Amino acid sequence: MYRPEIKVVDCTLRDGGLMNEWRFEKQMVKDTFHALAQAGIDYVEMGYRADKKQFSPKDFGAWRFCDEADLREVAYECPTKISIMCDVGRTDYDAFLPASESIVKMVRVATYVKEIDKAIHLAKHVKSMGYEVSVNIMAVSHALEPDLDEALDELAATDFDVVYIVDSFGYFYSEQVHYLAEKYLSRLQGKQVGIHCHNNQQLAFANTIEGIIKGVNYLDGTIYGIGRAAGNCPLELLIGFLKNPKFDVRPVLLLIEKYFLKLIKELRWGYEIPYAITGILNKHPRAAMAFMKGVHGNTFSEFFDELSNVDDV
Amino acid sequence: MYRPEIKVVDCTLRDGGLMNEWRFEKQMVKDTFHALAQAGIDYVEMGYRADKKQFSPKDFGAWRFCDEADLREVAYECPTKISIMCDVGRTDYDAFLPASESIVKMVRVATYVKEIDKAIHLAKHVKSMGYEVSVNIMAVSHALEPDLDEALDELAATDFDVVYIVDSFGYFYSEQVHYLAEKYLSRLQGKQVGIHCHNNQQLAFANTIEGIIKGVNYLDGTIYGIGRAAGNCPLELLIGFLKNPKFDVRPVLLLIEKYFLKLIKELRWGYEIPYAITGILNKHPRAAMAFMKGVHGNTFSEFFDELSNVDDV
Repeated sequence: MYRPEIKVVDCTLRDGGLMNEWRFEKQMVKDTFHALAQAGIDYVEMGYRADKKQFSPKDFGAWRFCDEADLREVAYECPTKISIMCDVGRTDYDAFLPASESIVKMVRVATYVKEIDKAIHLAKHVKSMGYEVSVNIMAVSHALEPDLDEALDELAATDFDVVYIVDSFGYFYSEQVHYLAEKYLSRLQGKQVGIHCHNNQQLAFANTIEGIIKGVNYLDGTIYGIGRAAGNCPLELLIGFLKNPKFDVRPVLLLIEKYFLKLIKELRWGYEIPYAITGILNKHPRAAMAFMKGVHGNTFSEFFDELSNVDDV
Repeated sequence: MYRPEIKVVDCTLRDGGLMNEWRFEKQMVKDTFHALAQAGIDYVEMGYRADKKQFSPKDFGAWRFCDEADLREVAYECPTKISIMCDVGRTDYDAFLPASESIVKMVRVATYVKEIDKAIHLAKHVKSMGYEVSVNIMAVSHALEPDLDEALDELAATDFDVVYIVDSFGYFYSEQVHYLAEKYLSRLQGKQVGIHCHNNQQLAFANTIEGIIKGVNYLDGTIYGIGRAAGNCPLELLIGFLKNPKFDVRPVLLLIEKYFLKLIKELRWGYEIPYAITGILNKHPRAAMAFMKGVHGNTFSEFFDELSNVDDV
């Protein structure tokens, strides 16, 4: 029995791009979009739309910026909608065409709780251009409860479509997901709630299921779990779980063989002890990513002790 | 807040041995036992005690048989108890010393539902020798409900200590774990219930947590998730989750660096698409293990189709 309201949002290129500065080849991006469209995925997030005055296009791949022309080269209009993400404070308000002239259908604004007013300002601008809009509250495992409640109440008063629970550090297990899903759903009456999980403790897929059980309808996944550090909820598992006959896992499996078995060896996302440690300790993965590059040169056990004694990183 | 009744059972050598025919070097086994003892693990399962008339010691490592003398070379009496597993139909009843003369404290009998009467016969024998006894009902995702209920009722009438839920195929998610945990606990009043999960869908740790939430107290884990095919619940994550101060994850982290980062490259347990496919489809991993060895030579997508159309494997 499936819930038709459920929408699957693939973030392969956007979150995966954090591991290679969005330097995915055009052919790979083209094949990825096509396979995801064949698989019946509801939204494909192609990357960020970062401000070119702050980030030089020379230093990044095209999917850090998602120019309209680049998107049109690799994607096409079909039931699978195109999404892009933009960060509070890193976005040029003038970089958006009216939605009616754009291939993009949804814009997701990524924010921390403390920047929620800026996020709402940006999201209102984008919504006024005609896009579907989501606000994704990152690192919610670090948010103070009254601040989060206030942010949700402010969002409740807007016309935005979706608000996301984002477990940036891969810290949550089911009980926290249940608690937050109930909170979001009760404070955001009439809006959809989404969930974006990280896999530091191998709980990204499990926590996504727990979101579904509690009524969360927008579900983020990535192909083979690609994403920053430990990565995300594997899309192939999510499709395997959802019973809606519109989904077909096979195009995703073909794509994994064609590109992702090789990519994972180059980029090394997935379960690794340093990422597990930051997840267990509710810390940003950047310390683990530095450790993985051999910057520290100490043991896992020393890394665990060091991080246990750091108030925040 | 921790639950003092919880016991952690490490199966590194026993389930991991399924990937290398129990050919672990004595020094590695020694270091493993010592580290697990230092970490405060309640039980360490050293391997199987297989019948030497059926399995030749020439064809396997020592931990397929767990001779008393071999165990005494690598382990020692301490608060961490030694466990061994034996399979119904593959066990020599005469291979057990009285518990008072053995270094082994617990014997776990692995069985399918259909062999429950044989399992009870064997478990009674072992119990009469003075050991703690657990009966582990494997592949419960293939069991017919009335058969399972009958088996549990038969077990309820015994003096065995623990009965395990075993998700051999890595098929379950939280709702099935809740359902089975409630069933086992209500039908097995006065006994402890355990859980042993496989990680085909990256749900082994999550499902173990769901067992804990429902009152399951015996928890299986393995170092770095080693085990057949996709492996098991990673012990380091389980210790990170449990709040009992007697556990210390650091000896396990040191051991991972010393042995398991290398071992995983040789033995290749962990998340792989063929294992995910057998998990999604509730099939025995042997088809995936054959696929991984290149026996089939077809694509993931063909493997998925093939397995979807097979009634049972």
